[in-house]
Amino acid sequence: MKKADIGLVGLGVMGQSLALNLAGHGYRVAVYNRRSEKVHEFIKGPAQDKEIVGTYSWEELGDALCRPRKVLLMVKAGSPVDAVIQELLAVLEAGDVIMDGGNSHFKDTIRRHEMLKEKGILYLGVGISGGEEGALKGPSIMPGGDKAAWDLVREPLLAIAAKAGQNEPCCTYLGPGGVGHFVKMVHNGIEYGDMQLISEAYFLMQELLGMSADGIGQVFEAWNEGELESYLIEITADILFRIDDFTGRPLVDVILDEAEQKGTGKWTAQEAMELGVPVPTIAEAVFARAVSSLKTERITAAKSLAGPHTEFGDDKTKLLQDIRQALYLSKICSYAQGFALLKGASDHYAWDLDLGQVALIWRGGCIIRARFLDEIAAAFHRSPGLTNLMLDPYFKAALNEGQLSLRRVVATAATFGIPIPGFGSALFYYDAYRRERLPANLLQAQRDYFGAHTYRRLDRPGSFHTEWSK
Amino acid sequence: MKKADIGLVGLGVMGQSLALNLAGHGYRVAVYNRRSEKVHEFIKGPAQDKEIVGTYSWEELGDALCRPRKVLLMVKAGSPVDAVIQELLAVLEAGDVIMDGGNSHFKDTIRRHEMLKEKGILYLGVGISGGEEGALKGPSIMPGGDKAAWDLVREPLLAIAAKAGQNEPCCTYLGPGGVGHFVKMVHNGIEYGDMQLISEAYFLMQELLGMSADGIGQVFEAWNEGELESYLIEITADILFRIDDFTGRPLVDVILDEAEQKGTGKWTAQEAMELGVPVPTIAEAVFARAVSSLKTERITAAKSLAGPHTEFGDDKTKLLQDIRQALYLSKICSYAQGFALLKGASDHYAWDLDLGQVALIWRGGCIIRARFLDEIAAAFHRSPGLTNLMLDPYFKAALNEGQLSLRRVVATAATFGIPIPGFGSALFYYDAYRRERLPANLLQAQRDYFGAHTYRRLDRPGSFHTEWSK
Repeated sequence: MKKADIGLVGLGVMGQSLALNLAGHGYRVAVYNRRSEKVHEFIKGPAQDKEIVGTYSWEELGDALCRPRKVLLMVKAGSPVDAVIQELLAVLEAGDVIMDGGNSHFKDTIRRHEMLKEKGILYLGVGISGGEEGALKGPSIMPGGDKAAWDLVREPLLAIAAKAGQNEPCCTYLGPGGVGHFVKMVHNGIEYGDMQLISEAYFLMQELLGMSADGIGQVFEAWNEGELESYLIEITADILFRIDDFTGRPLVDVILDEAEQKGTGKWTAQEAMELGVPVPTIAEAVFARAVSSLKTERITAAKSLAGPHTEFGDDKTKLLQDIRQALYLSKICSYAQGFALLKGASDHYAWDLDLGQVALIWRGGCIIRARFLDEIAAAFHRSPGLTNLMLDPYFKAALNEGQLSLRRVVATAATFGIPIPGFGSALFYYDAYRRERLPANLLQAQRDYFGAHTYRRLDRPGSFHTEWSK
Repeated sequence: MKKADIGLVGLGVMGQSLALNLAGHGYRVAVYNRRSEKVHEFIKGPAQDKEIVGTYSWEELGDALCRPRKVLLMVKAGSPVDAVIQELLAVLEAGDVIMDGGNSHFKDTIRRHEMLKEKGILYLGVGISGGEEGALKGPSIMPGGDKAAWDLVREPLLAIAAKAGQNEPCCTYLGPGGVGHFVKMVHNGIEYGDMQLISEAYFLMQELLGMSADGIGQVFEAWNEGELESYLIEITADILFRIDDFTGRPLVDVILDEAEQKGTGKWTAQEAMELGVPVPTIAEAVFARAVSSLKTERITAAKSLAGPHTEFGDDKTKLLQDIRQALYLSKICSYAQGFALLKGASDHYAWDLDLGQVALIWRGGCIIRARFLDEIAAAFHRSPGLTNLMLDPYFKAALNEGQLSLRRVVATAATFGIPIPGFGSALFYYDAYRRERLPANLLQAQRDYFGAHTYRRLDRPGSFHTEWSK
């Protein structure tokens, strides 16, 4: 039998879609799943008449692959990945390649990479974004790990990736170690931020402008023509137009307002804390989901905690324009945080990550794909060492032009009792970042007062301690 | 030679102070330090003529203690604690007690506790707050771990602890496992929040009201007479009054505005994320320190990112009153977050933590000691199962009375370009928590759209999925 080009372990929705995508690009795929019915169903169903062969044991999988073997794992992040690697090792040999395509924590990827290096197995941690449809038609792919492994699998990965711009694949080798999964994690953190900011814009329109779901949908549809053009804005309009089959009302109006999460947003904020990189807007997005899940407490609190008891009566057209600007500016601030985190991690872990390349491969296939990413890629092309996106001339001009709108929206929301932690944190991130002087001098004095932690001075070098209480 | 009541390992500032405190309360202390000069210096210096004996080997330390031996570790958190425990084990026997009085991560404490349990050694993770002065004159002490260990060391710990109210020791057994270090961690997280909020009040007075350090010091001095009365407000006034010896200017004005941090605030926010408990104000305090440390970037950004170019011209007396209210209300929101985190952790780890007791032992000795904590203790006494401090009648009344002031301060700061992430996150936490309906319905629809994650409905049970793109 003709050997397969690539092996794929784990036939969940993403695994199946990637297998079909690979086969559709002319690669012969050998698939394996712990529950063998899954293999059978897939082979008899979606994979019928495709260059996909089912295997029913690790040995069979190992035998089915041409050498050096390349195996893509699409199994649940965490201990299942370790378990599968252990079993695979029995049938692999030095020089073979394992790719982990799940949402593994980058520190797990680094650990597995080290472990496999000792055995001569090449390893890639591969972030894949795009959901089921992306996996099938072209996802954004973020590989990191052994360069030698990349050289062996670049062709199929480039082939199945989404294309953007001038037919450029949304996939490139990002660097060593866990960088691929780190980049995917930050992608998801940015996605959390985008979703929260869009939700806040929606909430302001609903609560202050009294707009219906359909009316707000029309606004998002119009905004999708400008600098906000993106997959998430597009699907938001679709969602707001959707009518519920049960009630005939807008479907969004009957959906429970408790957001769930699977952990990558949380990881982003936790790792940013670890590295000392401020990502307040992403953190607020994570916390906003947590507050939303306290529905029972909120119902109680709604009866006892007071709001402002006044209604917005100013120029509604102007507020709507301001909200659009606020969304765009907050998005810039949120991406600035995300890219600063990538830079911080790259410096810390010596990944030498090309931030412009990251922006390029996020242009297609993934959830945060947007016109906006062309400009980010251009910014890092202009200045590869750019410390913060807000300092790039293009984004600086946008911020300077729109900052008054963002201020008005935050002030209005504060005044009228609308919670907008994403917009608020974005504005205060901007306002703190552009301050030569912040009040941390007082804070350092306090630390020296109660803990003798010492402080530095503006006017002379060295560390100083004051006996404050004397 | 008469055996010592307690052993103390690690003669840093905190260790020395605690040894002197113990000796001052009639306990005989045997001290040990890896660098034996430290022992010698301490015995010949501050410990002279006290009931303190120096020991110069682990064996000598073990021999010097009455049985069961009780040893308090005051060594740097992390691997040094593990190293010291390993060496101590050679001279301890089943039934002896080890207490870790450093800022260990509570998960390390849980791990060490499990390991020592197998060897029959009793273990306590002991949070200690108060800095050098507190350690010497009476700190707040937060022990957790083996109840049997607590019974053996309660007398000396209660004796050396700060006293509050009717001579009540600021120390009580909090529960099993790592609860003592968890409570200390959250104490520090709340401390980060308090310091950030005070810094924001200071910054608003300086930037919008044009007040001098001395003038702001007078304001804090006056505020310390009311519901804001606390150690941190008191030392803030002291700091602002202090004149620099070099320049004759207010000392605070020449201190570098880059805040440092040692990690417990960061841990608090990370663990809150892990447990899904929103603590946005504490997280913003951590991130604000991170932004402050980007001084070089900020100097660049200050030249290119625009602010509002208008000056505050409204009623300055009213703004000052509003800032006081905003500080008080933000403090309530921040403590509400911290106590909700304690409750979340207690539920998760089955610690059965008494939140009222935590408030009581924070009333004296520690950095966040304040009149305010009497009211928190009273709130949990009224309602031991209180889900959120903001729902207690006393704090609810304060919030309802002051919320318009907090709104005005956040709106004013947004309008005039003053970064106040702490105040902002506190207000939006309040406004989100008191909302029966939040925009997370849109977010759940988005998740179902791109990831088929399903959603729930308001009007009927079950999980639903929509084929949105059709």
